[in-house]
Amino acid sequence: MRILVINPNTTPSMTAKIGLSAQAVASDTTEITTLSPDKGPASIEGFYDEAYCVPGVLEIIRKGEIMGYDGYVIACFDDPGVDAAREIATKPAIGICQAAMYAASMVSTSFSVVTTLPRSIPIIERLAQHYGMTHFCRRVRAAALPVLSLEDPHSNAIEQIKAEIYQALEQDRAESIILGCAGMSDLAQWLSCETGVPVIDGVGAAVKMVEALIGLGLKTSKVGAYGFPLPKPYQGDFAPNQWES
Amino acid sequence: MRILVINPNTTPSMTAKIGLSAQAVASDTTEITTLSPDKGPASIEGFYDEAYCVPGVLEIIRKGEIMGYDGYVIACFDDPGVDAAREIATKPAIGICQAAMYAASMVSTSFSVVTTLPRSIPIIERLAQHYGMTHFCRRVRAAALPVLSLEDPHSNAIEQIKAEIYQALEQDRAESIILGCAGMSDLAQWLSCETGVPVIDGVGAAVKMVEALIGLGLKTSKVGAYGFPLPKPYQGDFAPNQWES
Amino acid sequence: MRILVINPNTTPSMTAKIGLSAQAVASDTTEITTLSPDKGPASIEGFYDEAYCVPGVLEIIRKGEIMGYDGYVIACFDDPGVDAAREIATKPAIGICQAAMYAASMVSTSFSVVTTLPRSIPIIERLAQHYGMTHFCRRVRAAALPVLSLEDPHSNAIEQIKAEIYQALEQDRAESIILGCAGMSDLAQWLSCETGVPVIDGVGAAVKMVEALIGLGLKTSKVGAYGFPLPKPYQGDFAPNQWES
Amino acid sequence: MRILVINPNTTPSMTAKIGLSAQAVASDTTEITTLSPDKGPASIEGFYDEAYCVPGVLEIIRKGEIMGYDGYVIACFDDPGVDAAREIATKPAIGICQAAMYAASMVSTSFSVVTTLPRSIPIIERLAQHYGMTHFCRRVRAAALPVLSLEDPHSNAIEQIKAEIYQALEQDRAESIILGCAGMSDLAQWLSCETGVPVIDGVGAAVKMVEALIGLGLKTSKVGAYGFPLPKPYQGDFAPNQWES
Amino acid sequence: MRILVINPNTTPSMTAKIGLSAQAVASDTTEITTLSPDKGPASIEGFYDEAYCVPGVLEIIRKGEIMGYDGYVIACFDDPGVDAAREIATKPAIGICQAAMYAASMVSTSFSVVTTLPRSIPIIERLAQHYGMTHFCRRVRAAALPVLSLEDPHSNAIEQIKAEIYQALEQDRAESIILGCAGMSDLAQWLSCETGVPVIDGVGAAVKMVEALIGLGLKTSKVGAYGFPLPKPYQGDFAPNQWES
Amino acid sequence: MRILVINPNTTPSMTAKIGLSAQAVASDTTEITTLSPDKGPASIEGFYDEAYCVPGVLEIIRKGEIMGYDGYVIACFDDPGVDAAREIATKPAIGICQAAMYAASMVSTSFSVVTTLPRSIPIIERLAQHYGMTHFCRRVRAAALPVLSLEDPHSNAIEQIKAEIYQALEQDRAESIILGCAGMSDLAQWLSCETGVPVIDGVGAAVKMVEALIGLGLKTSKVGAYGFPLPKPYQGDFAPNQWES
Repeated sequence: MRILVINPNTTPSMTAKIGLSAQAVASDTTEITTLSPDKGPASIEGFYDEAYCVPGVLEIIRKGEIMGYDGYVIACFDDPGVDAAREIATKPAIGICQAAMYAASMVSTSFSVVTTLPRSIPIIERLAQHYGMTHFCRRVRAAALPVLSLEDPHSNAIEQIKAEIYQALEQDRAESIILGCAGMSDLAQWLSCETGVPVIDGVGAAVKMVEALIGLGLKTSKVGAYGFPLPKPYQGDFAPNQWES
Repeated sequence: MRILVINPNTTPSMTAKIGLSAQAVASDTTEITTLSPDKGPASIEGFYDEAYCVPGVLEIIRKGEIMGYDGYVIACFDDPGVDAAREIATKPAIGICQAAMYAASMVSTSFSVVTTLPRSIPIIERLAQHYGMTHFCRRVRAAALPVLSLEDPHSNAIEQIKAEIYQALEQDRAESIILGCAGMSDLAQWLSCETGVPVIDGVGAAVKMVEALIGLGLKTSKVGAYGFPLPKPYQGDFAPNQWES
Repeated sequence: MRILVINPNTTPSMTAKIGLSAQAVASDTTEITTLSPDKGPASIEGFYDEAYCVPGVLEIIRKGEIMGYDGYVIACFDDPGVDAAREIATKPAIGICQAAMYAASMVSTSFSVVTTLPRSIPIIERLAQHYGMTHFCRRVRAAALPVLSLEDPHSNAIEQIKAEIYQALEQDRAESIILGCAGMSDLAQWLSCETGVPVIDGVGAAVKMVEALIGLGLKTSKVGAYGFPLPKPYQGDFAPNQWES
Repeated sequence: MRILVINPNTTPSMTAKIGLSAQAVASDTTEITTLSPDKGPASIEGFYDEAYCVPGVLEIIRKGEIMGYDGYVIACFDDPGVDAAREIATKPAIGICQAAMYAASMVSTSFSVVTTLPRSIPIIERLAQHYGMTHFCRRVRAAALPVLSLEDPHSNAIEQIKAEIYQALEQDRAESIILGCAGMSDLAQWLSCETGVPVIDGVGAAVKMVEALIGLGLKTSKVGAYGFPLPKPYQGDFAPNQWES
Repeated sequence: MRILVINPNTTPSMTAKIGLSAQAVASDTTEITTLSPDKGPASIEGFYDEAYCVPGVLEIIRKGEIMGYDGYVIACFDDPGVDAAREIATKPAIGICQAAMYAASMVSTSFSVVTTLPRSIPIIERLAQHYGMTHFCRRVRAAALPVLSLEDPHSNAIEQIKAEIYQALEQDRAESIILGCAGMSDLAQWLSCETGVPVIDGVGAAVKMVEALIGLGLKTSKVGAYGFPLPKPYQGDFAPNQWES
Repeated sequence: MRILVINPNTTPSMTAKIGLSAQAVASDTTEITTLSPDKGPASIEGFYDEAYCVPGVLEIIRKGEIMGYDGYVIACFDDPGVDAAREIATKPAIGICQAAMYAASMVSTSFSVVTTLPRSIPIIERLAQHYGMTHFCRRVRAAALPVLSLEDPHSNAIEQIKAEIYQALEQDRAESIILGCAGMSDLAQWLSCETGVPVIDGVGAAVKMVEALIGLGLKTSKVGAYGFPLPKPYQGDFAPNQWES
């Protein structure tokens, strides 16, 4: 099967890292392609960045449908554009936040999320509420790191993340940890070993969840909210994105 | 005070209608400007359309800040882009769904929403959950109308909306009704008279709520999730939207 | 328009302060009248005081209806008697807790409440739940102040309130603050300046919300729970309050 | 032990009926006294009536404390004044709605409530939410009966109640039924036999729950919200109710 | 009336203690029998132990039905087997967690639970959610005690429990305390005196609640989830437990 | 990888059917073993049956750990014993209800469950609440079929299930369907084709989810509630199940 993994931001090093994390867990028979938009923000730190990454993500999904991909992963922990992607995708499309939270709730009775910036905490709490994970989620913690500091080998990002994890285990009594940023995906396995608890990376989780849905032969429901967009005129720069039946 | 009312879709007749509805309730000292994006969908019927209306909405908000508007209304019942708008606006910015639901919950113990298409029901239910209105909201109903049929004087849209309202009163025991589409904003007063219950139009409700917030001297909190976007490179078509400190 | 603002307790200095706070935000075309009951407690600190303020509040609302007021504000943060008031008022009637919480949720993703006494915390938490604001409300904090200490120029009330606000910003990560007592209404603007975050006074918020509802032409729904009381005999001291159709 | 059962309305036949229902379930060693206020409404049908029954209820509780009662039942399904009563009572005080809902949730996985008037439905739903019973409560149904029709031997009240019960069993899949009005308390046993499911009367349930709490030696917590009222001046007609330490 | 109190574990000293606690609160006319299974774990500390105590508990209930008991108490704070017991019992059957939480919510606006081991915290939180007590429950605390240390007169269990209670009062602002283990049932009265707040033992609470339900003539609903098991073959060791109509 | 799929009941034809359903979706590199207990009920229709299937399920898990399986599926829609299984399993263990609900929530905004008997509805609703799926779950429906009728080729089970699905799509506006019994696992693919919406079988979903968790290298957290059982004596028939460190 062929899975298209989309890094919604435009930073190539992060696309590469996400691709490696996806590859690392993919089944032998899965072919991973990793893409990122040609327009939009270099990192996604809040609602504004999110708004400007979504059109590019959707263009990739549209191409993906033409090229016959079997499923899609949107690799940003805010799960940007996932609902819109499901409208235009016949195949399963999932975000890394939803995948990670479901994985965590199957191997523990509670988790804490460690993300980058405090401004992302309310966004992730809202996703937890929407996905029904509020009572599994002990706390969303921020390590006070800009997203792109994760790309900087000289930053002390890893130490700060590890410190937050230990606080989550002690103060929140979390039984597992979710890394709340695609840029942390390379750290999950090592942090799992270090801490002795499941440390879950959403990129990997989403790849495996999409493989699972594809393996079940499940497609996105076209009855109701995820039905194909209704054809209508699109104006200006966005005219090429106009949906036609 | 000067309020900027944004119709997120590109249909001029709807922009005009929204402008009239806003004017009709605005205080004497309020100046209403109504704008719509120069790019994006002709109507917003689902997540995909929503994704493509948001960049245009945000460009208008950015211009609005430069021109010194005192507050913003985003006049689509899916409240598209409201959170992103709050990041870049120093002044209050609200969507018509949130405004209508809060208004309804102050004049009744429960409401039902009558919207256009069934595919919008899950979207509105999710907003109700996010705004804390789940237990006030008896039911979200769809009159099975495309949004633009509301612009067609020959459609039987009004009859279908009225029929849904009577069903909401009888079957849902709703005590008030919210019209779940900006395209219905001209009908609220007449339907209130017809049915004898409060029938609430979000456009009007949002204009008055923004007036209220402005009158209180309240601005959008810049601590936390609605802080200004962090400066960073934006690529390609979206480069002009790059935020700079 | 004419709005009747009711201080549910019998302390004249607090009625005066509430009147000033209401005037300060009212529109030019709004006429504010401030009244307080001729019977009942000097301050409202718990359920018992609340029970004994409500009959006096309702008598004022009845007179207000005869005198043709356009809307009502009940200016105690426990929102005493609001539901009963809505039964007898054709016009909108709102409490300052509901108004403040809705205002806060439109300018931030979360708030903390700073009230007077710890015994009021469960009361306010219950209101937050009823109004659907539980997930917006980070925490209800008490400054351990008797209500009437706010009327004492020699108390250190302001310092204690400010200290609680700073704790709310740091510990609760609240993005805005609600002052949880009508007696604090004169402090909101100053505290907003001091702290740099929206500090919301319910008295002002409720005046503007009622103006908004009146401006929309909305009346309290008379279908369902807020229908007029059913006529029936009232005995003893309360016979004059008997409702007649 | 001595339990004081309070009918919050002023209709003597209902006080008598409530007294009989209380006696019928009381333990041999329990002495039941039934009282009703000398002021207030003849029946409680909404928030306004509720507001005017509470002061009389609280006066009875104050006398009860002086006379050394061991516990209190407030016998109206809206649980009027229960929280205020708990402030002034050292002994347990409970309402019939809370007692009935807890009893139902111990003998079935779900219940429906059958009350008198539709206007009471939102009141009872709100109590269910407050007591944590939302997911046990399938539906609150109204038989469209004025409360005092239950005192009229010529009304067809019983048939209408029975019809609602059968609908609750079939349509709501309720496993037990709660009678949502103290005026129905004489019907519970007969309706249980007729329908074959537990039909729960709140008056009886509350008497037994208070007996249980008394038997456990439990008193109302005086730490926090149910601490004694703070002493302060009460003005006018309510001066006699002023609390003094 | 005759109530059968079941200690689900096989430790005789705990069965004896539970029996004494039940006796201490039972009415004069109540006859208490205390039994424990002849198979299963010596203490219940988690889901695995719980699974192995349930068959023994159910065998006792089956015998109880034959012997004509009027009601059942399952005296472990995880409420093991309560739902299954209700299927085979015609009479009321309740667990000590549900009983304690309802009692606490009638004498205070919030409680904290003090249990033995941290691993039990998620179990009790889940019960609180199921019983609708989440917003009454401030926190579930563990004193880090193995269950059987409560049987050891040389342990410092009591001091640790008392320390947790004081922390619950100060940090959680709990207004009452629930002892979250049947092995603590002998401590409730003494701890109530020491701390001045209601300290609730579930064993006593459940005995009184069952007495209450029996006194109301309530039986477990046989419509729906608690209907008798459907007759069917049981294999192997469990064949004797096969239900026959 | 080797996955152990456990049919918790003792009916061989159902074990065989579950095995086929598991095989049908398993990856090429996955080896499926299907087992059922040698003791317990022939079908699981309620809490009592559930209690008696769990010990047998846990014995299989213990053997599975010794034999080095990589993960476990418990193939009954009540998810019996899953939490206990996670205590003794180092590898992931999941139930088919949790797996199916998470799968459904990734391909649609809502689902309805079609199960066998009405008595199972409250059990599944409780699981939905526990898994956070309440607002995704439109309704749990029962086709009024005994579980073993699904094994009878002459029953009209399939027609009744299909009829319920069509009602779910029309009346509940469900966007996907979950088959709420392992005995229906062979029908999912055919019903998906017939109805045009995703029809999800929990057995398949759980196999793929476990494959996903194993592929991620995730193990059950041993910190907190799913830590290994504490060693202690087990009496009587259950002595062999005594856990030793």
